[in-house]
Amino acid sequence: MNKINSGITVPLGFRASAVKAKIKHDKLDLALVVSDRPASVAGMFTINKIQAAPVKLCKGVVALQSAQAIVINSGNANACTGRKGMDDASRMASVTAECLGLNEDSVLVCSTGTIGVPMPMEKIENGIRAAAAELSEDGGDIAARAIMTTDKVSKQVSAEISIDGHVVRIGGMAKGSGMIEPNMATMLGFLTTDADVDPSALQDCLSAAVRRSFNRISVDGDQSTNDTVLFLANGMAGNSRLSGSHKEWKVFTEAVDKLTLELAHMIVTDGEGATKFVTVTVKGALSNSDALAACRAVSNSLLVKTSWFGCDPNWGRIIDAVGYSGAEVIENLVDIWYDDLCAVKDGCVASGTAVKELQKILAGKKFSIVIDLKIGKGRDTVYTCDCSYEYVRINAEYTT
Amino acid sequence: MNKINSGITVPLGFRASAVKAKIKHDKLDLALVVSDRPASVAGMFTINKIQAAPVKLCKGVVALQSAQAIVINSGNANACTGRKGMDDASRMASVTAECLGLNEDSVLVCSTGTIGVPMPMEKIENGIRAAAAELSEDGGDIAARAIMTTDKVSKQVSAEISIDGHVVRIGGMAKGSGMIEPNMATMLGFLTTDADVDPSALQDCLSAAVRRSFNRISVDGDQSTNDTVLFLANGMAGNSRLSGSHKEWKVFTEAVDKLTLELAHMIVTDGEGATKFVTVTVKGALSNSDALAACRAVSNSLLVKTSWFGCDPNWGRIIDAVGYSGAEVIENLVDIWYDDLCAVKDGCVASGTAVKELQKILAGKKFSIVIDLKIGKGRDTVYTCDCSYEYVRINAEYTT
Repeated sequence: MNKINSGITVPLGFRASAVKAKIKHDKLDLALVVSDRPASVAGMFTINKIQAAPVKLCKGVVALQSAQAIVINSGNANACTGRKGMDDASRMASVTAECLGLNEDSVLVCSTGTIGVPMPMEKIENGIRAAAAELSEDGGDIAARAIMTTDKVSKQVSAEISIDGHVVRIGGMAKGSGMIEPNMATMLGFLTTDADVDPSALQDCLSAAVRRSFNRISVDGDQSTNDTVLFLANGMAGNSRLSGSHKEWKVFTEAVDKLTLELAHMIVTDGEGATKFVTVTVKGALSNSDALAACRAVSNSLLVKTSWFGCDPNWGRIIDAVGYSGAEVIENLVDIWYDDLCAVKDGCVASGTAVKELQKILAGKKFSIVIDLKIGKGRDTVYTCDCSYEYVRINAEYTT
Repeated sequence: MNKINSGITVPLGFRASAVKAKIKHDKLDLALVVSDRPASVAGMFTINKIQAAPVKLCKGVVALQSAQAIVINSGNANACTGRKGMDDASRMASVTAECLGLNEDSVLVCSTGTIGVPMPMEKIENGIRAAAAELSEDGGDIAARAIMTTDKVSKQVSAEISIDGHVVRIGGMAKGSGMIEPNMATMLGFLTTDADVDPSALQDCLSAAVRRSFNRISVDGDQSTNDTVLFLANGMAGNSRLSGSHKEWKVFTEAVDKLTLELAHMIVTDGEGATKFVTVTVKGALSNSDALAACRAVSNSLLVKTSWFGCDPNWGRIIDAVGYSGAEVIENLVDIWYDDLCAVKDGCVASGTAVKELQKILAGKKFSIVIDLKIGKGRDTVYTCDCSYEYVRINAEYTT
């Protein structure tokens, strides 16, 4: 697997563009992604019971297993907007379809931004028309910038692999910074490939990859109304159709796993106000679900996150979070490690580990916490960040 | 029910004291509360699976239904301290018993402070001896100050009621400011009364009162290893023994309810970095447990809490939290009120409510959020606060 440049227009037969539609004040805020031919499609969506209109629309398109274009806006989530919101999402699909000479039901729609504000449809329709005129094979970069909200950096990945002796390219982009929690918070993710992939297999591949990446990150414990990850596979690479029975299926899924994990790490690193990237692993749990529950309790604990920000090896807050996570735990078995240093041994402070050494680890930009419960074989990992003044500032000032 | 002065020494036959035992640097950090005669005792404890040594000790004493003294230290939680921690808690009880001429099993022990640090037992033993020499009927106030950690103010309540024509007094004190969440986070609460109360009835009364008060507050979503609420009833008022069958039982329980709720509100108001006291009510839920789940999701959402701090009527974050709370919700039925102003009607922005009017409410120090799901009769209320820069500062700097 070779790394190559930039995002979603790296695979053959994908074009993209973005414009300032004035949904936001003078910033890129509307993007198009288009495949030259109909593509297999897979999607993963928020499990929040309040779902934005475009999420509902996308689910319908993904059920048809084929799509050719994605229209995405930032600045307005089109969530909690009632019947008008559904009409607006449909209108975004139909205007896009009209501009591109496609059927409406082959157009996916994604929105991200403020909840509860009606969509400025005139601006959006004009934006779609303008973007359609600027589609380009180099458009991946500008599209990745147009989907940003509180993100500080755009997030793109890509890779080349070989399937059946053909070069196959996979590209991706994502946005997300706050409202990031279990099950894909305020994030959007897009993957493209020129591989030919059976749509059901594509969905399996995406579901597994998202479970190990976007569903294992946490910035603030909130879970959004708009989370969506979409994957288009247009078959232009010329390989024989990929599915679970193809001998090189694993080459493809491993590349997708790697790219989604890369994007997920980029989201955490760019977490609102984040100054540190922390990998939290729980092992030796009674079950994998216990391990995940404990990972999430630690990753979402404000007390833990602020102690990281303060470079304070306050493991008491970590073991406390494990204790209320619901996971089975026997206090006098618990070990806790900061990188290679043991802070807690059998539930008590580890002798021989100096607080100063632990503080050195916490002063870094990246470290791991490993919690060994020593009662079973359950294991999981969650990627998270610290909580700083800056998080409070961003979210106190982000306005309705 | 008349309000009278100050805390736990208001009821007849209770004395208290506090000293600087040097667990903390030159601050009051050790308190005693003593009843002149054996009292009925009831207790409620953290449900965290990691429990501090004194919690384990107290459970044993409460099971005996009778106690006469409480020794409390701040500055060290005696949690995650292994076998030495249990020995130290027992030693605190036996030294206290020895000083007061009591049996060891009539002494309750509470600790609050940093987790994982061995107890400085020499200082603590000296502190207990010094405190025992200073017990006084006016000692409630100094005891309430000695149990504080990050609290900015001490928290005391009391009331007088009439039972069987006898004046009965109830007093209370509490500490708590951070790590405050469902099921009694880093808080200690103490109630005393000179009423004669059957111990089982006292436990029922305390359990119900705690459920509606200390278990309905949230500062940061963390739940501690040390949470304890204790209630001593020494019978010196001369009433006939209270229990569920006494005709004035309700007079007593209502007074206890009111006092615990007052203490709980004091804890939220003094929440780490809190600038606003917010009452979150969910009604019209499918069940009471759904209502509670939705209350807690809203109360613990960092995005919601920072928006309150920013005086931003960002109801999108509130409905988002309801959506992921697990509670049943039908989007186009949801109404959301800020005090008397409707912000959301049937899942969409309420026409006719100006954002400026909502901002005025949020600019206050105290307001209510009412979320009406309109699908059932379930209802609950949680008391919480906003999240400010100050919260991050306190918890980044609080040191191990």
